[in-house]
Amino acid sequence: MNAEIISVGTELLLGHTINTDASYVARELSAIGVNLLFASTVGDNIDRLKEALENAYRRSDIVITTGGLGPTGDDLTKETIAKSAGKPLVLHQESMDRIIEYFKGRVVGESQKKQAYLPEGCTVFPNDWGTAPGCGFKTDSGKIVVMLPGPPSELIPMLKNYAVPYLMKDSNAVIVSRIVRVFGLGEGYVAELIPDLTDGANPTAATYAKDGEMFVRVTARAEDETRAAALCEPVVEELKKRLGDYIYGIDVESLEEAVVQELKKQRLTLATAESCTGGLLSKRITDNPGASEVFHMGVVTYANDIKTLLLDVPEETLKQYGAVSEQTARAMAEGVRKKSGSDFGVAITGIAGPGGGTAEKPVGLVYVALSDKEHTWVRKMPGTGTAKGRCYIRTLAASNALDMVRRRLNGLGGLEQAAYTLKK
Amino acid sequence: MNAEIISVGTELLLGHTINTDASYVARELSAIGVNLLFASTVGDNIDRLKEALENAYRRSDIVITTGGLGPTGDDLTKETIAKSAGKPLVLHQESMDRIIEYFKGRVVGESQKKQAYLPEGCTVFPNDWGTAPGCGFKTDSGKIVVMLPGPPSELIPMLKNYAVPYLMKDSNAVIVSRIVRVFGLGEGYVAELIPDLTDGANPTAATYAKDGEMFVRVTARAEDETRAAALCEPVVEELKKRLGDYIYGIDVESLEEAVVQELKKQRLTLATAESCTGGLLSKRITDNPGASEVFHMGVVTYANDIKTLLLDVPEETLKQYGAVSEQTARAMAEGVRKKSGSDFGVAITGIAGPGGGTAEKPVGLVYVALSDKEHTWVRKMPGTGTAKGRCYIRTLAASNALDMVRRRLNGLGGLEQAAYTLKK
Repeated sequence: MNAEIISVGTELLLGHTINTDASYVARELSAIGVNLLFASTVGDNIDRLKEALENAYRRSDIVITTGGLGPTGDDLTKETIAKSAGKPLVLHQESMDRIIEYFKGRVVGESQKKQAYLPEGCTVFPNDWGTAPGCGFKTDSGKIVVMLPGPPSELIPMLKNYAVPYLMKDSNAVIVSRIVRVFGLGEGYVAELIPDLTDGANPTAATYAKDGEMFVRVTARAEDETRAAALCEPVVEELKKRLGDYIYGIDVESLEEAVVQELKKQRLTLATAESCTGGLLSKRITDNPGASEVFHMGVVTYANDIKTLLLDVPEETLKQYGAVSEQTARAMAEGVRKKSGSDFGVAITGIAGPGGGTAEKPVGLVYVALSDKEHTWVRKMPGTGTAKGRCYIRTLAASNALDMVRRRLNGLGGLEQAAYTLKK
Repeated sequence: MNAEIISVGTELLLGHTINTDASYVARELSAIGVNLLFASTVGDNIDRLKEALENAYRRSDIVITTGGLGPTGDDLTKETIAKSAGKPLVLHQESMDRIIEYFKGRVVGESQKKQAYLPEGCTVFPNDWGTAPGCGFKTDSGKIVVMLPGPPSELIPMLKNYAVPYLMKDSNAVIVSRIVRVFGLGEGYVAELIPDLTDGANPTAATYAKDGEMFVRVTARAEDETRAAALCEPVVEELKKRLGDYIYGIDVESLEEAVVQELKKQRLTLATAESCTGGLLSKRITDNPGASEVFHMGVVTYANDIKTLLLDVPEETLKQYGAVSEQTARAMAEGVRKKSGSDFGVAITGIAGPGGGTAEKPVGLVYVALSDKEHTWVRKMPGTGTAKGRCYIRTLAASNALDMVRRRLNGLGGLEQAAYTLKK
């Protein structure tokens, strides 16, 4: 089955709203084995939406729209689609009750009420986080149409809970996907290591790069979950062999999730001391619900005297080697471990730029240290200048810190080898 | 002039890469007064790209492609477009020299070299951050075609430095945009306050919502910058009147930028103490280069004993009122101010969820405190449950903290009024 997404909304064409909806939908489609051929965006304009619909009906089996279901005058998706399909909009009492309930006794205007009118004979998708329901129906020529609201907070649950089951109900294939996550090897390098694996049709394997990391997604389709999983297995095993301990997790969401999970498992705790990352590392750790089990304390010691005050970094060290030095990173990591009483202390100090670089200590130079009761390891990220930007340098520094913890927890080598500094 | 974007890349249709390129391009087009009518995404597939091109040539004056210019076999954009326009690809020696230079003496493969072949007669856009150059040219039927590389780090500078000037060179209109940023009023509420302003044609005014904030963009077009700016002025002034001190900045990027700028101006310093936000507040402050002038210390006191250890929060307070309480927030803010020697201390303590909520202290309940030498103010974000999600609760908590600092710095009221708790 081929599908096409039409995102509706002038705000998307003005560029201030990034079209994340299309990505969410694309990911879900890919996960259930639906082939997405086109995605298009049109403004809140009947004629242009009609043109997009005609193109979509001509070339795809499934058309999914996002946006344009709300109460305001420029929300035209439902009316336009229903008209083009020759379906009248009829009152869906349950949706009307929900909308009235949503406003809790306040007067509900006509524009709000129009949201409860849906194409005759459609399957209604309740909106658990807003007022506009979505729906799915088949056109007379057999095309499947699915309409979803624009706000991601409404679209995401509706997609998972109602739209995907709706699309799956006619299918008798099951899709299983595995995500193999890698830190420290570039996507291009990995692609060259696994050309035979990315060539397959079932399972498929594909590489992706994001935020200084890469991952491989392995997807198989079969008549049931067990068989689909079994098809993935040998490819995942082969990836493990070829990529070794650069794989930080399989089917985890992020490096920080992998680290928090492993700390929990081993009942160990971690404290952070950050300079140039300014709290990004602790923010990423605490993005994980329940991080409080393994993380009790972080400090952002942006000024030198605060490094001494909170972490007992010797003034001598700062004076002799500077705040951005192996010695200071080491003292910060040891200091925060001791101060917090945690099993591990991690520290980051560097120059995120764009200012502050010198010939000797260029922008991008970052020292990352990990201390446990016996040892302290330090990674040096070489200065690469301002090209990659402040945000990238900070992200990669925090990721290097997490990678060091992961390697220490799993008894792996490479603690002092900064990511992407190998000749790969 | 009407334009259309075609994004090329199978990875975009699989949903793991969000199409931010299209947003960047859309924003730049809007800023120079080019009307974007459609945006579409196609995979790395010659036939489907051809179909998208045909549609675009038929309905738009300008066609901008992103992606598919790289060295690998599935990078087909340039070849497909050149062929459809009847333009041979010819060697551009300067681009070839750049590519050879980029590899610094390593062997440059044929696939890398093909990037230096560009449509005959085109204007070449050098790639300052990668290997694949972009270009612009006019087809025989007078359509303007612009090709840009996919990676945002390459696309963004090329767009600003080369593609926009290329598109502007035939135009004699200048566009000026002003961004009026608002925290604490919903987009819907603001839209109802300014229907007359959003109705205009030149200048236009439009509302947008993002990350718990909203903003109004005012755009005018005129023969020179002074006149375009003068057209914007009365609308901006009217917005100031109607939205009052909910406006935190005009032409700034973010609340944290506005706060850091104002702290710099007043030569004052700020320290942070975070519990549920886990470093997000200090991360946002230090996203701004040069934040070190106004920010020296932050702590993430995730565990109770760390609140006492680092901030001298009395054990009695924690025992009697709990970690998530007005009293603890107050003690944290005062503690971090004193400890750091800063002018202000800001503290956040709450329940970000999804777990940890009780009937008395539900998920979403957050106390935010600001302390100066004379006073301590506390905002209470009421618990709203898990619906909005951990990330949103944390973002809004950090924004409330920044808003308190801004209001204090500018001598405004409303320090203890949490955002969105008014009957608006």
